[in-house]
Amino acid sequence: MIPSPEEPGRASGLIPRDSSLPNLEFPFRDLNSRVTTTASFYVRNHFPTPPLTAEDWSLTVGGAVLHPLRLGLEELQSLPALTLTATMECAGNGRTFLSPRPRGVPWELGAVGTACWTGVPLSAVLERAGLPEVAATWEVVLEGADRGVMTEPVASPGEISYARSVPLAKALDDVLLAYEMNGEVLTPDHGFPVRAVVPGWYGMASVKWLTAVQVVPEPFQGYFQTVDYAYWETRDGLPPQLRPIGPLQLKAAIARPAPREVVPCGVPYEVTGAAWAGEAEVARVEVSVDGGCTWADAEFIDPPKPHVWRRWRFLWQVPGGPVRPTLLARATDTHGRVQPTCHDPARGSYMITHPLPIEVDVQESSP
Amino acid sequence: MIPSPEEPGRASGLIPRDSSLPNLEFPFRDLNSRVTTTASFYVRNHFPTPPLTAEDWSLTVGGAVLHPLRLGLEELQSLPALTLTATMECAGNGRTFLSPRPRGVPWELGAVGTACWTGVPLSAVLERAGLPEVAATWEVVLEGADRGVMTEPVASPGEISYARSVPLAKALDDVLLAYEMNGEVLTPDHGFPVRAVVPGWYGMASVKWLTAVQVVPEPFQGYFQTVDYAYWETRDGLPPQLRPIGPLQLKAAIARPAPREVVPCGVPYEVTGAAWAGEAEVARVEVSVDGGCTWADAEFIDPPKPHVWRRWRFLWQVPGGPVRPTLLARATDTHGRVQPTCHDPARGSYMITHPLPIEVDVQESSP
Repeated sequence: MIPSPEEPGRASGLIPRDSSLPNLEFPFRDLNSRVTTTASFYVRNHFPTPPLTAEDWSLTVGGAVLHPLRLGLEELQSLPALTLTATMECAGNGRTFLSPRPRGVPWELGAVGTACWTGVPLSAVLERAGLPEVAATWEVVLEGADRGVMTEPVASPGEISYARSVPLAKALDDVLLAYEMNGEVLTPDHGFPVRAVVPGWYGMASVKWLTAVQVVPEPFQGYFQTVDYAYWETRDGLPPQLRPIGPLQLKAAIARPAPREVVPCGVPYEVTGAAWAGEAEVARVEVSVDGGCTWADAEFIDPPKPHVWRRWRFLWQVPGGPVRPTLLARATDTHGRVQPTCHDPARGSYMITHPLPIEVDVQESSP
Repeated sequence: MIPSPEEPGRASGLIPRDSSLPNLEFPFRDLNSRVTTTASFYVRNHFPTPPLTAEDWSLTVGGAVLHPLRLGLEELQSLPALTLTATMECAGNGRTFLSPRPRGVPWELGAVGTACWTGVPLSAVLERAGLPEVAATWEVVLEGADRGVMTEPVASPGEISYARSVPLAKALDDVLLAYEMNGEVLTPDHGFPVRAVVPGWYGMASVKWLTAVQVVPEPFQGYFQTVDYAYWETRDGLPPQLRPIGPLQLKAAIARPAPREVVPCGVPYEVTGAAWAGEAEVARVEVSVDGGCTWADAEFIDPPKPHVWRRWRFLWQVPGGPVRPTLLARATDTHGRVQPTCHDPARGSYMITHPLPIEVDVQESSP
């Protein structure tokens, strides 16, 4: 698959961030609706898109279940469906703001989007397969049909498939086996015919082209949650431990002005953006137009909704030019937690949630 | 510390394998005793040797114990001691036989040795600290005083200390807190004043300069058992999972002839070596003098002893020259398991236990 924004079903404005795979970024400055159109939704591929068909696709449900089973697409779609809205963000979104520039897809601001997802709760499928008595350590491994060899950050053991796990409690709570995105059949870019949607988690958990679900009694240690998509956690006086990245972290992002945007001086400018908090809830957004010296409250455009970003706006009285002010936004959740001031190196090139500096040019007004 | 074989307490024959740290190899061709002298024992450092003193050293015992405690050296040495013999091998021993040559210390054959270790069973110290009701997932984290920053294979989260865990069951079984090696106080190279000795496991578990022991209720995911000293395990139809390297794997190694040794033709030559099996027991060693086409039994020099290698010999009727035969050795354990024929890439550059080809030059006899 050529990573061209001209593929059918992709908006022409998507920004390619990879020369070999479809890794495409939503131009975040274009944020103008709570739900992102499918055509404009960011695309993240680890391997080439597998050529699945509705006829041949099936989902195996196995591992520590009482009755392993296999479902075809029609069978899955005959189960009661629901629709949920969820914001999804790549765990490496904002990576180009790190210095020195780390390896990995060089996302700017737009590896994030919000969509309506329709499908069958994973819990319904697991209930059908039957669970024995389970413990808190149990997980569900979600495996995609996409396969390949990884060379960075370390070599994979030959060809592997893309797989991630979620705690069994999360799987039974709200994970969806989605076959529609924004009311239409999934596109190949977004996991046709069926993908997982893990509300409130970074996108790497929402496995596309899902073909296997396995219940396991202990934490899964697959490639994409150990040497990749992991961070270092320090606690209990122990040396740092490698942990899989999970829930979305609290974050506010500025859509307009865009980085390096030229802003007219002396007139009000509506700064806009979105804020999200994964499994928590955004309670407040503040904006700084002086590089973080002072902050003022922004106003929410959207009401709170679980797992969905809230857009916000802030009326900026742009000063006279020429100046190059730096704008920042920061969010607070309903527990009073605030975004960190700096990026924690223990997160590597993931979970970049410190306020990202948006530098703009305020021009002198024409004579 | 300069990685020179001329440091006090090191034999002059130790082969430096690293330009910045004391990583020194025993010249395996010199194998001539079951117990390796301390001066000839291979040295493996991840960070510079910490300057510990007997007076200042202490061991903290904490985590999920009933009575966290701290022991000085005299206090430790006042507890009942025992002496055990164990073969220790670096998990990357034999790495230079891999192609393409992987990163990591380029060990040939001699990152292995056998010593007598004297100290206090870890179980005695844990009993003193008191354990609550435990489960099978519990582990004990062994932490050394050596610290630094790792850059390969992935960056560590800043400065970290060297640490490894063992299952609690192993810790209570036979792990030793050793303060003597071959009847003498440990040298700085080997962990002065106290190191762990984990019998039957690769050397990375036998943490040197031990200063902390912590009981944890779930598997420890530290740097040196996830992104380093780990391998990919595939089972239960799941994608490969990252697992910490643990017990020594079955292996026979040839000491003489050494690689590229010149062997006189037409006279018998005593091929010698050693074989070890970690927590299992070596039952048989075979030798091939034709690159693996045919095999013949070797004879053991040493009787079986738990966790200790067995030396063996094989009388080779050297053919007329000039020829360049390839010699191989392979071991079988008491369960009938044999060394693998080839290196499994899922092991990365660790646990290199396929028979290593020793190519020699058989010269024509002088006229």
